[in-house]
This record gives sequence, C-alpha cells and structure tokens, in this order.
Amino acid sequence: MIIVMTAGAAAADIEKVIGKVTERGLKVHLSEGKFVTIIGVVGDKKMLQDVPLEAMSGVEKIVEITSGYKIASRQFKPENTVIDIGGVLVGGDRLVVMAGPCAVESREQLMESAVIVKKAGAQFLRGGAYKPRTSPYSFQGLEEQGLKFLAEAREATGLKVVTEVVDAQSVPVVCEYADVLQVGARNMQNFQLLKTVGKAGKPVLLKRGISATIEEWLNAAEYIMNEGNYQVILCERGIRTFETATRNTLDLSAVAVVKNACHLPVIVDPSHGTGHWKLVRPMARAAVAAGADGLMIEVHPKPDEALSDGKQSLTPENFSALMAEVDRTAKVMGRNQA
Amino acid sequence: MIIVMTAGAAAADIEKVIGKVTERGLKVHLSEGKFVTIIGVVGDKKMLQDVPLEAMSGVEKIVEITSGYKIASRQFKPENTVIDIGGVLVGGDRLVVMAGPCAVESREQLMESAVIVKKAGAQFLRGGAYKPRTSPYSFQGLEEQGLKFLAEAREATGLKVVTEVVDAQSVPVVCEYADVLQVGARNMQNFQLLKTVGKAGKPVLLKRGISATIEEWLNAAEYIMNEGNYQVILCERGIRTFETATRNTLDLSAVAVVKNACHLPVIVDPSHGTGHWKLVRPMARAAVAAGADGLMIEVHPKPDEALSDGKQSLTPENFSALMAEVDRTAKVMGRNQA
Amino acid sequence: MIIVMTAGAAAADIEKVIGKVTERGLKVHLSEGKFVTIIGVVGDKKMLQDVPLEAMSGVEKIVEITSGYKIASRQFKPENTVIDIGGVLVGGDRLVVMAGPCAVESREQLMESAVIVKKAGAQFLRGGAYKPRTSPYSFQGLEEQGLKFLAEAREATGLKVVTEVVDAQSVPVVCEYADVLQVGARNMQNFQLLKTVGKAGKPVLLKRGISATIEEWLNAAEYIMNEGNYQVILCERGIRTFETATRNTLDLSAVAVVKNACHLPVIVDPSHGTGHWKLVRPMARAAVAAGADGLMIEVHPKPDEALSDGKQSLTPENFSALMAEVDRTAKVMGRNQA
Amino acid sequence: MIIVMTAGAAAADIEKVIGKVTERGLKVHLSEGKFVTIIGVVGDKKMLQDVPLEAMSGVEKIVEITSGYKIASRQFKPENTVIDIGGVLVGGDRLVVMAGPCAVESREQLMESAVIVKKAGAQFLRGGAYKPRTSPYSFQGLEEQGLKFLAEAREATGLKVVTEVVDAQSVPVVCEYADVLQVGARNMQNFQLLKTVGKAGKPVLLKRGISATIEEWLNAAEYIMNEGNYQVILCERGIRTFETATRNTLDLSAVAVVKNACHLPVIVDPSHGTGHWKLVRPMARAAVAAGADGLMIEVHPKPDEALSDGKQSLTPENFSALMAEVDRTAKVMGRNQA
Repeated sequence: MIIVMTAGAAAADIEKVIGKVTERGLKVHLSEGKFVTIIGVVGDKKMLQDVPLEAMSGVEKIVEITSGYKIASRQFKPENTVIDIGGVLVGGDRLVVMAGPCAVESREQLMESAVIVKKAGAQFLRGGAYKPRTSPYSFQGLEEQGLKFLAEAREATGLKVVTEVVDAQSVPVVCEYADVLQVGARNMQNFQLLKTVGKAGKPVLLKRGISATIEEWLNAAEYIMNEGNYQVILCERGIRTFETATRNTLDLSAVAVVKNACHLPVIVDPSHGTGHWKLVRPMARAAVAAGADGLMIEVHPKPDEALSDGKQSLTPENFSALMAEVDRTAKVMGRNQA
Repeated sequence: MIIVMTAGAAAADIEKVIGKVTERGLKVHLSEGKFVTIIGVVGDKKMLQDVPLEAMSGVEKIVEITSGYKIASRQFKPENTVIDIGGVLVGGDRLVVMAGPCAVESREQLMESAVIVKKAGAQFLRGGAYKPRTSPYSFQGLEEQGLKFLAEAREATGLKVVTEVVDAQSVPVVCEYADVLQVGARNMQNFQLLKTVGKAGKPVLLKRGISATIEEWLNAAEYIMNEGNYQVILCERGIRTFETATRNTLDLSAVAVVKNACHLPVIVDPSHGTGHWKLVRPMARAAVAAGADGLMIEVHPKPDEALSDGKQSLTPENFSALMAEVDRTAKVMGRNQA
Repeated sequence: MIIVMTAGAAAADIEKVIGKVTERGLKVHLSEGKFVTIIGVVGDKKMLQDVPLEAMSGVEKIVEITSGYKIASRQFKPENTVIDIGGVLVGGDRLVVMAGPCAVESREQLMESAVIVKKAGAQFLRGGAYKPRTSPYSFQGLEEQGLKFLAEAREATGLKVVTEVVDAQSVPVVCEYADVLQVGARNMQNFQLLKTVGKAGKPVLLKRGISATIEEWLNAAEYIMNEGNYQVILCERGIRTFETATRNTLDLSAVAVVKNACHLPVIVDPSHGTGHWKLVRPMARAAVAAGADGLMIEVHPKPDEALSDGKQSLTPENFSALMAEVDRTAKVMGRNQA
Repeated sequence: MIIVMTAGAAAADIEKVIGKVTERGLKVHLSEGKFVTIIGVVGDKKMLQDVPLEAMSGVEKIVEITSGYKIASRQFKPENTVIDIGGVLVGGDRLVVMAGPCAVESREQLMESAVIVKKAGAQFLRGGAYKPRTSPYSFQGLEEQGLKFLAEAREATGLKVVTEVVDAQSVPVVCEYADVLQVGARNMQNFQLLKTVGKAGKPVLLKRGISATIEEWLNAAEYIMNEGNYQVILCERGIRTFETATRNTLDLSAVAVVKNACHLPVIVDPSHGTGHWKLVRPMARAAVAAGADGLMIEVHPKPDEALSDGKQSLTPENFSALMAEVDRTAKVMGRNQA
C-alpha cells in the first residue's frame, strides 16, 4: 500500500500518518518528491483495514499494490485447483460443458432437455428452479418442484446438476438436490449468501456480476473460501457496457486475467454473455480458445416455447453442432473434451 | 410492443407470430415496409410475458414501447407521492436530509453524530448496523447492538432512523428499531429481499444499483409496491462508468427522468456518489437544484477515525456549511428546508 | 511515479530497472515488502517518457502519482484563469451563457435565434456551420456561408460568436468570423486540430470527449496550451454510459473535480448532455449549483423544424424561463448573471 | 421507423406528425393502443433525415428499425467482400496477419522487425509513422522519414505495409508509401478524414472507436464507401468499460455481430485490446475462433526498449509461438493460414 500525500502536505500531517501506520506494527518507507511525498507501507495491510487513512488530513489518495484477496490468489496456491464433482473434474485436462434450459418449466421439458444435453456430450445439466427476474410480472420458477425434476433427470441420465440459489434461506433445500450451487450475477455481492454457500460444503459456481471488476469477483470468491469451502468455479457471463447490439459484452480477456491471478477454474456462459443464439457458437469456440475450463450453454428442446430467455437458447441441432466445434477447438488447446 | 421481423421473413413465420399474439387475446397491426415487416401489438403485454417471441423463427427483435412497471408510473398515479414518516413528510414541500456516519461504530460515536446532525437541521439519522463490504476482511458492522444504539439516539434527539437491511432474515429485527428500511445498491435486484420489505409495512429507501438502468430501478420499486407497500423512496447514489476520478458517476439527470416517469420521491446521496468529501457540497447543491426531494449525507464526528468510508464523510463544520448552502438552494427551488 | 515489481522479481531485474531510471538523472527509493518490491521514482518523469518501463522484465505495473498535464494544473497556476473575450469575462464573477441553434440553417433562422438569445440575457451566440454527423446522409452544415450569417448576427446584436472547427484546414476561415473556436467532443483527441487551434491565438472551447477521462481531457487542454494559447474554456457535455434513458450521462461531478485540479474555466452543456429538452432546465440549474462558470444551451425559434437536434432544443419561452431560474441559482452561488 | 406518441397525445398532434411524414412521400401505419399511439413509417427514411420528428409536440420517441448504413450492409451485398491487396486477399479463405512495432523508431528497428514478422509468416508489416498520443510530451513519430523506412522494409521483405493517417492533410504522402491506410480509433468519427480516405482509392483499415457502438462503426465505414471506396477492413481493438485490469475490453462478440450485419472483412487487434503482452496470445486465438478474418499484432525486437506501447508488444519468440497457435486454430475454422 502506498499513501500519496497532497502537494505541500504539512510535516505534521505526514508524521501523523506515519504514526498511525507504525502503531499497527507496520513499517514505512518515505519518498519525498519535488511536489509530493509518498509513504510506502510494508507489512500486512489487513492491520490497517480499520484505519481511515484516506480521510486523514494531507492524504491525497491510497494506492493499493497487492490485491484484497489472498486464498484465491496464485501467490497463495500456484497450481491449478481441480474440483472433483462425483468423478467429473472441473479445471482439469478435459473441458466441461454445463447445458440445459434457462428455467425448469415442466418435468417433460426438463427430461427432454437432459436427454439432448447428455447425448451431445455435456457432463452437467443446468436449469433454474428459482428465477430472479427484472419484472415482478415475469415467470419466477417452479422452486422445489423444479429441484425434484432436476434430481430425477440426474437419475435418468447420470448428468451432474447445477442450479441457482437465490437467497441464503433456500441453500439447504438446493443442497439436497444439486451437485453444484450456482450464485447468479445479481447476487455476486450478496455477502450473506456467499457466506452461507461457503459453509454449505458443496461446490459453488460463482457468476461474475454484470458490473463487477475482476478484483471484486475474486474478492467474492474469497468470501466463500474464507468459510472453508475451496470448491469455487468462476463463470464469466458478460459485463454491462454502452454497446446495445448484444445483451452484455462478453469479456473473454477476463479468462486470461483470472488464469494469471487465481488458481480456480473458470468457465464461460456465452448464452447470457451475448443474449442471442446466433452469437453463442462463435463465442463458445472463442471462450475455449481463450483458455476457459468449460462452458455453460442454454439449450431448449423448443426455444420458441421457452418461458425464459428463449432468444438465447440453442435448439438441439445447434447444440450438437456447437459441441463438435468446441471439441475441435479444445483439441487445439491440448484438451480432450468428452 | 412492436415485433420487428427479419428482412425477407417468410409469410408463414409472420403468420405464426401473429397467431401467438392473437391467441392471447391481443390485437396486431401489420406494417409491411420495403425491407422489413413490423407487427404492432395492441393490448396488455403482460399476457405475452411467457411467450418467447424473440426466439420465434423470423423474428429480428422486440421493441418495448411502454415500461415494465405500472404501479410506480406517473400514468398510474399522476400526483406526487408524499410519505409521512412519523410526521416528517418525504416528497412534500420541504427538503429532507438524512445524515450520519456510514457505520454505527460505538454508542459514543453514534450519539455524538446524532447531536451534530440534529443541530445542523437534518430530520433523519442514518447509520449502518449491517455493512456489506467488498472484502471479507473489512469491518462488518455491530448488527443488533448497532440497531439499539440507533433507537437510543432517536429517543435522545427525535431524529427518525434509516438503516440498511442486507437480507430477508434480518428484516424483522431491523423493523423493530428503524423508521425506514434501506435497501442498498448491491441488493437492488435481490428480489427476495424486495418482496420481504414489500410485506414489512415500513417505508423503504431503495438505492439505485451501481449498474442499474432507471427502468430496472423502477421495476425494483415495482417489486416492493406489488406486495402492497407503496411507501418507497428512491435514492440515486452514482453509477459505474469508465471515469476513475470519482468513486462513481453521480447521475443527477436520473432525478429529472424519474420525476417525469414516476410519482415516488427521489433523494440523492452525494457521499457514495462521489466518494470524496470535497465533492459532497457542490453535488449536494446540484442535487437540490436538479429537483431532488432530499439528501443522504455521511457525517462523522472524526472522519479520520471512521471504520468505514471516512474519506467521503463530512466533518461537523463541513456539514453545517452544507446545510446552509442547501437551504439557500432549496429556496430557489421554492422549497423550505428545515 | 512508482514502479511495482512482480512478486519474487529477480534482484537482477530490479537492478536493471533502477539503472534505467538513474541513468536519466532521477532518483529512486526502494521499498522491499514481504511479497513485492516497489521502486519510487523522484524527479521529473518527463525524462522517462520514452523508457518502456512496463515492458521490462519483472515489472508488474507503473502507478502514476502526478498527472500528465502541467500548464493546465492548479499547482502550476493556483488562481483561476479568467478569459476576456471582447469585454466578456469567462471564469469571472458573472455566469456566462452561450446559446443558439445546433446548426446554422438559414440567415432568417439564425437572426431570429440571435434576437431571442440576446433578449433573454445570454452573452454568446452558438451555432454550427460545420456539422460532424454520425451518418453521411444527414445535414452537414452551411460551411462558410453559415459563418457569414454568424458574423452578421454578431453585428446586429453584439453577441460574441462561438462555433465549431471540425478540422485543421478550416481553422483559418473560422478564425475570420468567430470569437471562440469550439473543438467538439469527437475531436477532443484530434491532436493535429488541438495543435492548430493552439497556434491560432483565439480562445478555444474544448468539449470533453464522450468517453474521455478527466485526465485525458486536461491533457487535451495541455496540447493547446503547450502551443502558447492559454485561453481554454472546458465544456462538460456528458459521457457515454450504459444508461439509455438519456442521450449521455451528464457528469456534473467533473465540474468540481476540474475546479480542484485545474485553473481553467468550466462550462456545462445540458442540451447534448441529456438529449431531451425536458431535462435541460433542471440540469442547467444543477450545473450552476455545482459551480460551473457558464452554460451552453441549444435554443431554436421552432425546434420542430430544426435540421439538427431539435429534440434537445428549447423554445424561446423555455429558454427565458431557464435564464430566470439560472439567474436565481447563480445568486445563491454568489454570482451575478447578466 | 416508428414514431411513438406520448400517452394521451392530442389528435391534432398525431395528425400533424402524419402530415410531416406523408408530405415527404412516405406512408404511415397507425396503431392506437390503450395508452399509446404509434405511427409506423413505410418507405425510404432518408427522406425524413432533416425532419425533427422528435421535437414535434406529442412525440415521445423515435424507434429506428433499420440501420443508418446501407452500402455496408449484408442486405445491400449478401456475399463477403474480399479485398485484394497486391495479391494478398483480406476476407478470403486465408487468415491474414499484420504485425510490427507500434511506432517506427529507426531504420534498424523497423528492418529487424520486418524480418521477424516475415519469417513468422505474417503478410503485412504495421508501424506508426505518425503517432497520436494522449500527452503532448510523448514521442510523436518520425513522420515522412518513418514512411520511407516502411517502404524500404517492403522492398526488402515483400510484406505489404499498413500505417496510420492522422489527418486529411497527410493522406497524400501516406498514400505514396503505404498499401493500406489505417484510420485509428480516435479518428473513427473524424468525418473529414473519412471522406478524404474515401476518395484516396487505397484500401482502408478502420479501427473501432473506443466508445463507438457497432452501428456507429458501420456508419463510419459508410462514410468511406459513400465516396466510392469499397475496400474497407474493419478492426476491433477494444472498447472502454469500467474494468481496469485490461487497457480496454476486447469485444469479440462484435466480430460475430458485424459478420451477420455487414459484408466487409473484420480483423482483431488484441495488443491494443488488452494492453498487456501476456494476454495477446489467448485473445489472438479467441479472435480467430470467433471468426475474425485476420489479426493485427504488435511485435518489437526488444519490447523493453520500445518508444511506445512496449508493454503490449510481443518478443520475436512469443510472436512465433502465437503464429503456430493461431495457425492451428485457423484450421479448426476451415481456414488455411500462411
């Protein structure tokens, strides 16, 4: 951490700041420039987390040098984390694909989806039983009945189940049925939920918030890991920008940035990331080529009858074609997809 | 709602879309251009909320003409909503000011803050007992003990209390102590929480999400109102943009946009909106001049000892100066501040 | 400037970086943390502008402490710059208002506009003779004929003339007719144009680019000032964000930020900043309350016949009302408007 | 085009709008909803470009249905445009790679770069002779001397030359030496420059502006094509967002969007798009997998001695490795790279 003093800060102010830092057991390096004095802080900056340095007289700004997360960082754990979900490894040599409808709508729709997804080679079935929707008048999900259908589909196909938890209260019931708990983009900084899934002991899929920096995203992972749960899969799903041609702007460079800074597996969701089925295949290929460990794809037996996000769902035929393309791309990356 | 077909869409596709719309009891107006056919939909579009028109063959895009919220709209209720909070009117002729520390840190700090805030003329005491923080290693709040201090400060000063609820579970306990329940920016689309405060029967202060459009913000208000609670105060507190000179970009035009589209009171938080105490006074004046019904301001007896956001907190002296400036600006707006 | 080395950077890399810095005559302060070594650089960082420190082995990142502009900074010149334009002072005690149509369309339209603007109390007439338009099929301006009409309107009313230069070639002809050369948002980083207006010796109105940071904006001013022309007026006119309810997001906090960092006058254009005439009045008041030195407002005798941006133009009646409100707001700020 | 009237618009206002539209020879379709009347406009909307419909009384907003560009659209020309640059085809079956230093610094540096680039298999040499730089104090380029070095490198290696034109005045001199004229991101809406390169008869590489929507980018291409020059190559190079971990956010979905909407070739610049050499290889692979027709890559013999953007330049070794990876990815896409 570096403390930048305002131009012409009083000597007394500088000394007061130094005093605050050293009384917490940290060391300082003073660097007096022509215009500006800067104070380098050496030691564990957690000791200063409750010291409002930026509000002190004469302080211009604080520049953070190291990131706020620790357990999630590559410095803490240099090798890749591989998560074993009932025998399917996420973050390992093989690409993983999670696919299925946006929302669980009926037993029939889900079972049909599961068969399609399984046949095309995916390892996970996705589907929302609890749906967070912008308008209170939109379809809100089948809730526990939806979870039961998911579990039934798992029995029938052997697919693993990933589904969203929308609040801390529903974590226990979702844990009963799911293999992976998904925390959605809107909840990425729902800290109560993060702590609860951190204690739940199940693998967690953590979507990036629509306006979250990578640093904030990894801090959210840190909340989960800080509760003792190290099985966190990160999922890039697009950020909000000024561009309106796509629903969001899929930030594939985030995959490479995270891979450098963090040891957790990263997957990409091009369905939400683009919002249009025509863009899903090219962006799925691109995600794999960028180094993603897996994909999350919306597939629906009949997208034009879907109750949620039909516009971005693939038909069974398109999904099969995607899987073939992705498989070839994965091989270029030295990966063996199913 | 308008359905735009792709250039050269097949007649059969157009007919299929029309069939979907009319089978829900709505009417269509067909407009065949040289390149493109568009289908105007007349009637209550809620009837179509579960029809995935955008996924249908031949559909290029859907253009929404009317907003998704109803109860929050000026069309629904043309006159301004004025909320009576124990005799203090929000949205009426007088400007309201909510002020206090970011976090409740101790009984002493809070009581001292309350006296300062009261003396300068504010009507509400703000202060967080539950603190959502980006890093799990930051100060997380005094929780119920903090609420008790807030209630005590109310007894002592007569100020009303506004404080944040961070999850649905804590709504009952916060209701015991607070006059207004604050829903923070990160929770603006925590729909479970919105529904819960909608049922709680207390006035709600709904902050705009850091990357929420005005349309999404008003839809979030609609979630609360849809549960029967019409006492919603909107609070603009800055959006995330590319600019890094300020913590957020305070979007004051949102005040005017909301005032046109919606009947609810709107206040502005220049402390979070700018992130720097030097910018709070000019932006507080600007907010009032833009037509805001009130302000939320961070004040701390000793900002350089604050456990949270000291950088953006005003000293007692600065706060008094702000109140005087704001008072003069309010008069220009035909408002009488306390 | 601070050089942050990667965790575990080799001693040889650190020494090589120090060597590069010291061979340019600068000093370093070394600060070795537990994880990271940082190198503080003391001296004139211009000496390092051609040294690619960030590409050197072992360098994680460079943190700039001081801004890139010098002549534009408050450190360089603490007192406000006041620009005298034929007796009208910009940046002084009185608020200045520049108003008129988006584009000069005809002699009649311009003369009529000038009379309206003058009568309501503005000091400057604005109007584009050269129009940069997104589509090649839109109205592109009357060019030199438009300039002649502007000059004629000045003769008739005594208003000063501000109009846009769209490229370096047209600077001489615009100089013949205008009192202030406007550099538009799209040209804020057209460096050839900046240098040319810097040499032209006329006052320059420099609009902020739609996606320019405040730092980049002040660097653009520096380009002009570096050619010897210190008469630069900055104009905030909205930035591009995700919000679509307004044409741009007017960033009024930029006024306060610039006033702290820079000595040049700052005005605000709420017409382009919001894109809708209904929002112009509240945002004009807010701009003045935020501390702006002036306003630029689009006024058209008949907005619904305007060839450009009629949607955001005020009618004569609305403009008069705005001037009265702005006048009252200016007085609160201790300013005397005309 | 659709004209949405305000709720409760007067019949007289509706009629006046209809009159304006029909007097230009266009037809209207009227659709009267419960709350809102909408007017569909059928015919060539260019006829209305100078009619300020949005400023007319009772008009809420205009919704554009078709894009503003015509010649650049797939509707105008369904098949892909392939540009022949001295025998090298851009937009054809083979991927093209343009590589070289950010700036031409010296004869020696450029010749060395050219040999590296040629040997690794690229077809184009890139290098800036005129450099637009944020600060007036940064290296501004060798200008015509740099162009001479580029031409000399072409003689020696057979590589085609692509280099930037920064203003209309320098178009003739750049045409003397270059095979492709590059219009940089900052100049994407420098309309004078667009028209000039449109008349110059040389192929143009048009970079996307840092905050340009895809619609605006294609309109900029339309400016060039409208002058009769159809040889336009589009180049995605990252947009400005809130994320600070990368210099820009490379928007690879733009490649797929443009490929659907437009017939021109699209290439990607991951060097500027990410700003960090470590991210260039993954994003180059991803760009090819997303369907890009080519890449533009910064390569420098000694990045840590570069006068510009060394941080994002590849070493010769890294560039060779990139070319091998890209080659394998191109094959998956059914493309044969050199």
